[in-house]
Amino acid sequence: MTYCVGLYLREGLVMLSDTRTNAGVDNISTFGKMQVEEVPGERVLAMLSAGNLAITQTVWNHLQEGVWVGGEKLTLRTVPSMFRAAQLVGQAVREVFAADGPALSAQGVSFDISLMLGGQIAGGPSRLFLIYSAGNFIEATIDTPFLQIGEHKYGKPILDRALEYGTPIADGVKLVLVSMDSTLRSNLTVGLPIDLLIYRTDSLEVGLRRRLTEDDPYFRMVRERWSAALREAYLRLPPPDWLPA
Amino acid sequence: MTYCVGLYLREGLVMLSDTRTNAGVDNISTFGKMQVEEVPGERVLAMLSAGNLAITQTVWNHLQEGVWVGGEKLTLRTVPSMFRAAQLVGQAVREVFAADGPALSAQGVSFDISLMLGGQIAGGPSRLFLIYSAGNFIEATIDTPFLQIGEHKYGKPILDRALEYGTPIADGVKLVLVSMDSTLRSNLTVGLPIDLLIYRTDSLEVGLRRRLTEDDPYFRMVRERWSAALREAYLRLPPPDWLPA
Repeated sequence: MTYCVGLYLREGLVMLSDTRTNAGVDNISTFGKMQVEEVPGERVLAMLSAGNLAITQTVWNHLQEGVWVGGEKLTLRTVPSMFRAAQLVGQAVREVFAADGPALSAQGVSFDISLMLGGQIAGGPSRLFLIYSAGNFIEATIDTPFLQIGEHKYGKPILDRALEYGTPIADGVKLVLVSMDSTLRSNLTVGLPIDLLIYRTDSLEVGLRRRLTEDDPYFRMVRERWSAALREAYLRLPPPDWLPA
Repeated sequence: MTYCVGLYLREGLVMLSDTRTNAGVDNISTFGKMQVEEVPGERVLAMLSAGNLAITQTVWNHLQEGVWVGGEKLTLRTVPSMFRAAQLVGQAVREVFAADGPALSAQGVSFDISLMLGGQIAGGPSRLFLIYSAGNFIEATIDTPFLQIGEHKYGKPILDRALEYGTPIADGVKLVLVSMDSTLRSNLTVGLPIDLLIYRTDSLEVGLRRRLTEDDPYFRMVRERWSAALREAYLRLPPPDWLPA
């Protein structure tokens, strides 16, 4: 399983992914699920992936080698806009489905993936997309400034409650770490370390890319303080007045 | 969809269920999912249900009319122990499966339910069970003092973090309300009003049974204060020291 979350904020993008993959509970490995293409001053694109690792790795390889679209072969380094980049990822997914789908189906393996693509290409705005296994996609907006893929439910309530498009990046980082922590605690198939990327709107370079391990002092502090704050918060709630003694 | 949660605490049991059912997004109704049998001084049993409503209502009717087990017809009012009560519920589930399973299957409807049974019968301890659609069941223990059925993920992190067997009932009530609130906010197919039952160990009578609507002042206060407390808690976290300005 996987948990990846992306924030679409006025100040920029925050993207976070875990690194655990599992083929059954007794075959657990660490694989990065964040891929980044950066041409400083010109473009930054980051892709997060969830689902069947053989499929998502193959999709990424197609994107590296180039995908034929309308008579030209494009990569994430040459595609002219973020919209076209999302289409390109979708096209790569469809190519993998065409090539591997029948064999997977014959083995009873579903073609089950989802991808997130965020970034900015010079001349256009910063954007964040979620690409489905059919190659179609949706985009984060001001109304719903976050997207999630994989095991998304445990980490959703805090985002539903606290996140807005105007949330500063520094606060967004705290929120995705809390969201990830809730998921890590409740689902063992989502695991540390985690990969964080920050992109500031119009910077056209990666703002920060950092792998956080179990020993990261900041992440540890967030986990401990958050648990303590929740316990404190519920203890501070008065008991119901209708509760019999 | 449904969300039901039960706490198994030293002081007693806390059980909470929502009331929303849906057959598609355009057919939404309110049905109680909490059934209670009480013989004051002798027994209290409460059953919560999730999944196909036609199945769970039929199971409850079987339990009311009596289920044949080992040559005798038993109901939740006559069964001699909580373990036997859980078996009886499982047996009722299997009878409904035997009667309705083939016809449901022919229509492509899965036999998909889960039930929670909590309570105490004089002479035995207070216990809390989760009964699956195969009629088998598990029991809450001191190590994991809560059970959930239905849409359980949104409301699990707070329980994972804060709940212990020794948590007082008054605090348990706050926790299940917070857990329900997280679920209500994130999944529209879980809906108000909600039904709460409290049972105090060895009292052998229902401690409290209360329906909480959207207008309930206490539940409103919990929802508002909890959201405010979460926002405050994350804002109080210091920003990462590795974050570039």
